[in-house]
Amino acid sequence: MTIALDTATMLAQLAQLGAIGHDAGGGRTRLAFGDADKQGRDQLVAWMRDLTLDITIDQIGNIFGTLTGSDPSLAPLMIGSHIDTVINAGMYDGCYGVLAGLAVMRALHSAGMVPRRSIVVAAFSNEEGVRYQPDMMGSLVYAGGMDVADVLNVIGTDGTRLGDELARIGYVGDLRPGAVVPHAYLELHIEQGPLLEAHATQIGVVADLQGISWQQITINGVANHAGTTPLVMRHDAGWAAAAVITFVRQLAQQSGSTLATVGSIQFSPNAINVIPQTAVLTLDMRDPDDEKLTAAEAQVATFLQTLATQAGVTITSQQLVRFPAVHFDESLVATIAQAAHDLGLSQRQMTSGAGHDAQMMARIAPAAMIFVPSQAGISHNPAEYTSDADLIAGATVLLAVVQRLSR
Amino acid sequence: MTIALDTATMLAQLAQLGAIGHDAGGGRTRLAFGDADKQGRDQLVAWMRDLTLDITIDQIGNIFGTLTGSDPSLAPLMIGSHIDTVINAGMYDGCYGVLAGLAVMRALHSAGMVPRRSIVVAAFSNEEGVRYQPDMMGSLVYAGGMDVADVLNVIGTDGTRLGDELARIGYVGDLRPGAVVPHAYLELHIEQGPLLEAHATQIGVVADLQGISWQQITINGVANHAGTTPLVMRHDAGWAAAAVITFVRQLAQQSGSTLATVGSIQFSPNAINVIPQTAVLTLDMRDPDDEKLTAAEAQVATFLQTLATQAGVTITSQQLVRFPAVHFDESLVATIAQAAHDLGLSQRQMTSGAGHDAQMMARIAPAAMIFVPSQAGISHNPAEYTSDADLIAGATVLLAVVQRLSR
Repeated sequence: MTIALDTATMLAQLAQLGAIGHDAGGGRTRLAFGDADKQGRDQLVAWMRDLTLDITIDQIGNIFGTLTGSDPSLAPLMIGSHIDTVINAGMYDGCYGVLAGLAVMRALHSAGMVPRRSIVVAAFSNEEGVRYQPDMMGSLVYAGGMDVADVLNVIGTDGTRLGDELARIGYVGDLRPGAVVPHAYLELHIEQGPLLEAHATQIGVVADLQGISWQQITINGVANHAGTTPLVMRHDAGWAAAAVITFVRQLAQQSGSTLATVGSIQFSPNAINVIPQTAVLTLDMRDPDDEKLTAAEAQVATFLQTLATQAGVTITSQQLVRFPAVHFDESLVATIAQAAHDLGLSQRQMTSGAGHDAQMMARIAPAAMIFVPSQAGISHNPAEYTSDADLIAGATVLLAVVQRLSR
Repeated sequence: MTIALDTATMLAQLAQLGAIGHDAGGGRTRLAFGDADKQGRDQLVAWMRDLTLDITIDQIGNIFGTLTGSDPSLAPLMIGSHIDTVINAGMYDGCYGVLAGLAVMRALHSAGMVPRRSIVVAAFSNEEGVRYQPDMMGSLVYAGGMDVADVLNVIGTDGTRLGDELARIGYVGDLRPGAVVPHAYLELHIEQGPLLEAHATQIGVVADLQGISWQQITINGVANHAGTTPLVMRHDAGWAAAAVITFVRQLAQQSGSTLATVGSIQFSPNAINVIPQTAVLTLDMRDPDDEKLTAAEAQVATFLQTLATQAGVTITSQQLVRFPAVHFDESLVATIAQAAHDLGLSQRQMTSGAGHDAQMMARIAPAAMIFVPSQAGISHNPAEYTSDADLIAGATVLLAVVQRLSR
């Protein structure tokens, strides 16, 4: 039986959700557990109700809408992503995967089809991790990687306690995270990178996901007068910071697969005529090969030791995040590739550069991801854009895979 | 006739002035034309009144206390510095020179001596330039380098108009800046650098002052996802900023006399997982040889052009300050050296690394400076320290020079 996707509704819902938390500059901000996130959640739940899905909320606020299958003894198939955003975000990141999941549900619902296996659409809490760290929090907790009690006590960048904010917006549920272990987990997402566009490819079949290493590096030197302190007497934390940035770029260049980025930096006292006393910088390194990532971390650590001596400064480093590389389920990856092939769509097997809820769900269930192109690779930005045709192609692949897995 | 310095009062006044604007952390903040600056000015004027000096204020708030000489047809000798401070300052910078000037006046006053030539102690407005730019503003205006009307319209970092704040604290005077051209200008100051201490020398005879070049460099790249953007597709403003810092350090190393410091930097969006879109950094370069400084500026400009191409970014640079190197008056320098020699003090001819009011006054009068050691070269910091013995030695040299020049 052929069933049809109501793609017009999917695209309209994307725009409607994207209007929540919108500002005059064209972006939107729905930080986890804030007022705009509550509005987004309320809208999603309303749409789930329209589809007569069973709605459950777990203790960390993950939202699940279930279409109960004809054989409740079977573990459900789960389609998931998130609807929280970064600051000044685009409208596709996360939301697309959740709303395409709803589109699949709507297609089945409209066709009056009851799958054998239950299907769940999940919206995981706080994937972005902007207000409360770590990121991918909802799926991490769901997969057992962090205790609920600990997570509820996380203090946000605005000084609020996560549990208080979750209660305030009314999204504390009864479900124990991890209570329902899916048969398989699927996540449809925009690429957030430039490769599909560069290769004029419609579908990315995501076979693995890079390991991610985040560290904060703190360099302590001596503040002194820029006009009176001879070079040999300087302990310049800023110059040492520049050496780190230069080194990690070279490391990435030589590696070929490792990515390294210093995205944030802060000098103190940060005055034009004062040699920086301290420099605090962050280092984001990624590699699909976990051994190479670990080796890169070791290279950086060795370099920092040498640099400290050479620059006459002290350097400390704090690991902020370390998620291992994830290899998605081979059979699921093959199913996605076959579905795209059968639909006549161009496809490419690829690595996910970004972190996603799928990497957490892969801890407890076979998981894989489907990517669609991001124009110019831009994401986390109001200019984030994927064409309607690509959005529709992705949802069509998702529907085809769901049909294969749930029947 | 031998006259004695009342050094106990000088040291007590230094501590008393240093207590104004003091905070719990041990520093003090008396930004130009703010409430604490007004308190400091009021205290200074009260001390000048105690010495029966004639007090005049000019249109930019420079304070002059004059001991009228026996021959009013002679141009006066001026001793000057400043009493405004940076944020979280030590208690010696600037204040020492003004209060040592008062100590000289007190010594003459107590001895009942009337010099032939009038002597003026000057406290110039806004030497530090923290709240309103440029720095050395009061002496710059006094020397004719900037129009009063323009200066009064300068807007501060806090959004206030300088003229409004000057009026609010009650220090708008009638005197036209530059109305009194001194016979000679002397400034006693802490070194703010480590050389006198490193050479165990009591007195620095300052023969020249480095040229100063400040520029703000703005690098525009493209913000993109740190996990999904291949190296070859990056336009990383942060990496380009690091290349600038590394280059100017090498330039300084190769030059031998040029100093180069990147003291402040700001990335945007400054997020751990986003490639920096913009980096704004400041570059402070100094050299006692103006030609070398100009050559260094040209080298930086060429490098920025090459770097822009190499890093795929655009780079603009804005000159913030450019003061030429100053060669102080040879005869005055010799007089200071002779006075130190006659007093049996160890001395060293040197270059001033920092900018001072003397460099502005040198535009209209023979000028020179006397330095005393700064412990560990530390300045612009509550830890700024000069021993009482060194402070007294410096004031003694100042008195001796004043006696030679005013009789």
